[in-house]
Amino acid sequence: MKDVTLKTATAESVIRCGAGAFEAYAPKLNSRQLFIITDGTVNKLYGTHLSSVFGERPKYVIPAGEKSKNPRVLMAILKSMLEAGVRRNSTVIAFGGGVVGDIAGLAAALYMRGVRLVQIPTTLLAQVDSSVGGKTAVDMDGVKNVIGTFYQPEEVIVDPVFLNTLPKREIRCGLGEVIKYGALNAEIYKKLLKNIKKFTRAAFLEDITYDCIRHKATVVQEDEHDLSGARKALNLGHTTGHALELLYGKRSHGEYVLIGAYYELQIARNFGICVGQYAENLEKLILSVLKKVPSFDVIENAASVAAHDKKNDNELISLIVPKREGQSVEMKIEYGKYEQYLKEISDNLRNKND
Amino acid sequence: MKDVTLKTATAESVIRCGAGAFEAYAPKLNSRQLFIITDGTVNKLYGTHLSSVFGERPKYVIPAGEKSKNPRVLMAILKSMLEAGVRRNSTVIAFGGGVVGDIAGLAAALYMRGVRLVQIPTTLLAQVDSSVGGKTAVDMDGVKNVIGTFYQPEEVIVDPVFLNTLPKREIRCGLGEVIKYGALNAEIYKKLLKNIKKFTRAAFLEDITYDCIRHKATVVQEDEHDLSGARKALNLGHTTGHALELLYGKRSHGEYVLIGAYYELQIARNFGICVGQYAENLEKLILSVLKKVPSFDVIENAASVAAHDKKNDNELISLIVPKREGQSVEMKIEYGKYEQYLKEISDNLRNKND
Repeated sequence: MKDVTLKTATAESVIRCGAGAFEAYAPKLNSRQLFIITDGTVNKLYGTHLSSVFGERPKYVIPAGEKSKNPRVLMAILKSMLEAGVRRNSTVIAFGGGVVGDIAGLAAALYMRGVRLVQIPTTLLAQVDSSVGGKTAVDMDGVKNVIGTFYQPEEVIVDPVFLNTLPKREIRCGLGEVIKYGALNAEIYKKLLKNIKKFTRAAFLEDITYDCIRHKATVVQEDEHDLSGARKALNLGHTTGHALELLYGKRSHGEYVLIGAYYELQIARNFGICVGQYAENLEKLILSVLKKVPSFDVIENAASVAAHDKKNDNELISLIVPKREGQSVEMKIEYGKYEQYLKEISDNLRNKND
Repeated sequence: MKDVTLKTATAESVIRCGAGAFEAYAPKLNSRQLFIITDGTVNKLYGTHLSSVFGERPKYVIPAGEKSKNPRVLMAILKSMLEAGVRRNSTVIAFGGGVVGDIAGLAAALYMRGVRLVQIPTTLLAQVDSSVGGKTAVDMDGVKNVIGTFYQPEEVIVDPVFLNTLPKREIRCGLGEVIKYGALNAEIYKKLLKNIKKFTRAAFLEDITYDCIRHKATVVQEDEHDLSGARKALNLGHTTGHALELLYGKRSHGEYVLIGAYYELQIARNFGICVGQYAENLEKLILSVLKKVPSFDVIENAASVAAHDKKNDNELISLIVPKREGQSVEMKIEYGKYEQYLKEISDNLRNKND
């Protein structure tokens, strides 16, 4: 087990990484007043185990899935916290994947203007990315993460034991974010290339998760509130990925990030920003997880969705694209051009996939 | 006009104080994308003026009154911001009293994890107290301010011109908080005693407002997130005041703060914490605003409400009480004793008032 410490102007977050972390650190929370937030799927798998570790505690179980990330569920959680007599020095435990972490983090941030928060991510995606860095949110009217705060958890317990019960597809989803880190960090990139056949092995995942968390912690320390641009780089793949996710659903967030990264990589290639062997290797990494990148009917509609995405200025679409090993850049592309490129890339994929 | 600057670990808030501040600083906001939040009463009085200064801007008008401070109205505001296309670098203007400031501040804090916020308080209470320091909130299920964040406005424009349209009762309400500051700050205390007949004069109010804001800014700088205890002192009068407000309603928040301060002052006297001439003078200041302190039937119920107040530990009720000039202390009083004292003080008042 190894710790990563994330220090910001106002908070310190300790991230416990590695096999055995849950067993070692969860029982230490037992002296506190706890309020557990989880989802239906995770509760079925681990509800009994949670009770055996923490005893009977007030718990709010949200329906599994992205649809729960809305203001109505947020308010229901807060009401339940109030009814359970949660106090300012109580601790909220967010036990689950990205959706649970995002909405539980926001509930913890808002209740009495902030109670203690421990994130225990149970999916690969939440472990490598969303549980670290303090972004909390719910969606509203189809706009992702438009309501939220920055709120650092006191502690994040990242234990690969929970990946044992994770469907393969969810592993692939988390690998989407891992590959994103590969496009941002040269060390991770090299490790990915070297282990391209071993992505789903437990030892590899434990190791790469720690690397991703370290990278993210460094970025968040530099730019906690997403103002200077450093943190923006973490959105690589997300502008197009979010838009496609909203339009087409079905696939998981991480898959869409990877699909978005693929499309954006082709745009970067077209602009000569990312070329040669490096571009080919990135494509290879993406394909090693996705196998087949889908084409979409009316993909050009994604442009209008992306334009409403909060990461964009007026008429230009902002993309974070890979440039060279360990370096990404922001490119701004005109709305019409972006629309056209998406269509071309999708058409090419359709021909290839046929 | 004078500025007060409030610097915290992550933000800087500039408070423009004095006659002419609105005319001088509001037009400077005109180059920005604005979203105005106000209430029905204020909009009737100043809607046309706002349009003449800012032009036609998206605006959300909440019903006047404390009842609007709830999650439903908060979500309606956020939805309206989304529909109006508010972006991350847009500015929310909170134009109104304490309720508008609290809920608009929270909306600004949550929208896209925080947009720019300018507070333009139009009531004395909001000017001397609630618009400064970054506390934002809504109530839930009868519990005041249980959902909120700390979120500093970039700028606060405190112009006494708005007090011209303020009902006398609202002035009294603001004076409640002013007198609270008198119990915390020796300079303000002396100024209040010296001007006890001039409380409602414009020049006096402008001057004392600046003093109160300076005091508050110092406290908030020391303890932005209400953790070390410094900020807790600002709750003088509020534990009992909040409980009575929830149980009996009708009177304004500021009046209840003052009634709470009166009851808590008598408790402090009984415990020998605040005695002699100083205690008499504080009582005189309170009575100069309230004229008559009310007794309440079943006031002992306030104890159970206060025990659920978020400022309290388990079985002890925490009160911030005046001790000597410029010094307050926290006292913890047993639930039963607190109940009994409230009843005794109320009975004495009933006999006196009859």
